[in-house]
Amino acid sequence: SGVVETLFFPDSKLPCRNMRKPGGCRRPHCEFAHEPTSLTRFLAHLAAATRHLDICVFTITNDDISDVVLDLHRKGVKIRVITDNDQAQTQGSDIDKFRAVGIPVRQDRSPAHMHHKFAIIDGRVLLNGSFNWTRQAVTGNNENVTVMSDARLISAFQTQFNKLWEAFKQ
Amino acid sequence: SGVVETLFFPDSKLPCRNMRKPGGCRRPHCEFAHEPTSLTRFLAHLAAATRHLDICVFTITNDDISDVVLDLHRKGVKIRVITDNDQAQTQGSDIDKFRAVGIPVRQDRSPAHMHHKFAIIDGRVLLNGSFNWTRQAVTGNNENVTVMSDARLISAFQTQFNKLWEAFKQ
Ligand SMILES: [Zn+2]
Ligand SMILES: [Zn+2]
Repeated sequence: SGVVETLFFPDSKLPCRNMRKPGGCRRPHCEFAHEPTSLTRFLAHLAAATRHLDICVFTITNDDISDVVLDLHRKGVKIRVITDNDQAQTQGSDIDKFRAVGIPVRQDRSPAHMHHKFAIIDGRVLLNGSFNWTRQAVTGNNENVTVMSDARLISAFQTQFNKLWEAFKQ
Repeated sequence: SGVVETLFFPDSKLPCRNMRKPGGCRRPHCEFAHEPTSLTRFLAHLAAATRHLDICVFTITNDDISDVVLDLHRKGVKIRVITDNDQAQTQGSDIDKFRAVGIPVRQDRSPAHMHHKFAIIDGRVLLNGSFNWTRQAVTGNNENVTVMSDARLISAFQTQFNKLWEAFKQ
C-alpha cells in the first residue's frame, strides 16, 4: 500500500548505546532500552541507506541520529542536509559535525522557517511527520513519523528537496 | 496507492475570502488568490467531512481553517480537538471559539509538547505533516501536508488519537 509503518513518540527510554557493541549491555540495572523502540526503528531505516540520503529537517540535535548519519558518510553514502538557520545556530554541534567531515549542509536564512521534517533514503523510502531530530522529541513529545515507500509520494518530496537545495545555495 | 496528494507550502498568497460569495471577487487589483492554492485544497479536504473530524494539532490560529471547522460543527459533524496548552494559551481565540460553540477540546498540559499536526476526516482521509494550522505556516514557512487514504495508516493514527484523547481528559 505504500505505507511501511508508522512510528509514534514519546519512547519511554532512550536506546542503550552498549547494544551497539558485541556482547550487548552488561550494566546491571541499566536504565536504557535494550528492546526495539520507535527511535531504534527510525535509526534502522536511516542506517539502511546504501547510496543517497537527503535530509530536510528543521532541528537536528540528537546524537543517536547524527552518529548514524556520520557513519553512513564514512561508508560512502552521499548525504545532503537542509536545515533552518535559527535552529542551526542554537544547536551548533550536529550541523557543525556534519560540515566538519564534508557533508554538504544548506540553510534557510530567511526569517520564515524551513519547517519540514523529512528524509529520503536511496530514493526508495520517505520518513516524514512531526518529529524533529532532537532528544526532547524522542522521550518527551507526542510525535509521529510515517515511513512510506509510495513512488509518487517520494517523487513529490524529492522534487521539493531539489527545489529547496537550489533555493538555499549560498 | 493510499496517497491522495501532497501539499507543499508556502503559498504565495492567502485565499480571497470573496471567492466564498456568489459572484466571487469583484475587487479591482485584489491581492489575494482566486485560483486553487495548497491552503484551499487543504480546506476542501476538511470541508468534505460529513460525520466525524478528529483534529490533533500543536498550534491552531488560522481563521480560514477555524472557519471551516466551525461551519462543519454547525452542520452537525462531530468534531474533537486535541492541542497543546503552551500554544492554546498564546493563541487564545481559535480554541476559545471552538469551546464557545461546544466543540470538545482537550489539551496536553505537560511540559512536553503534543507536537502532532494531523487530522482524520470521517475515518477515511488523514492529513499529516509538518504544517501547524497558523497563518505563518501558509505564506511564510516551508511545510508539507500529506493527504492519505490508506486504511492501515488511518487506523494507526485513529488509535493514537483515541489514546491521547483519554490521556488528556481533565
Ligand atoms: Zn544497557
Ligand atoms: Zn479577491
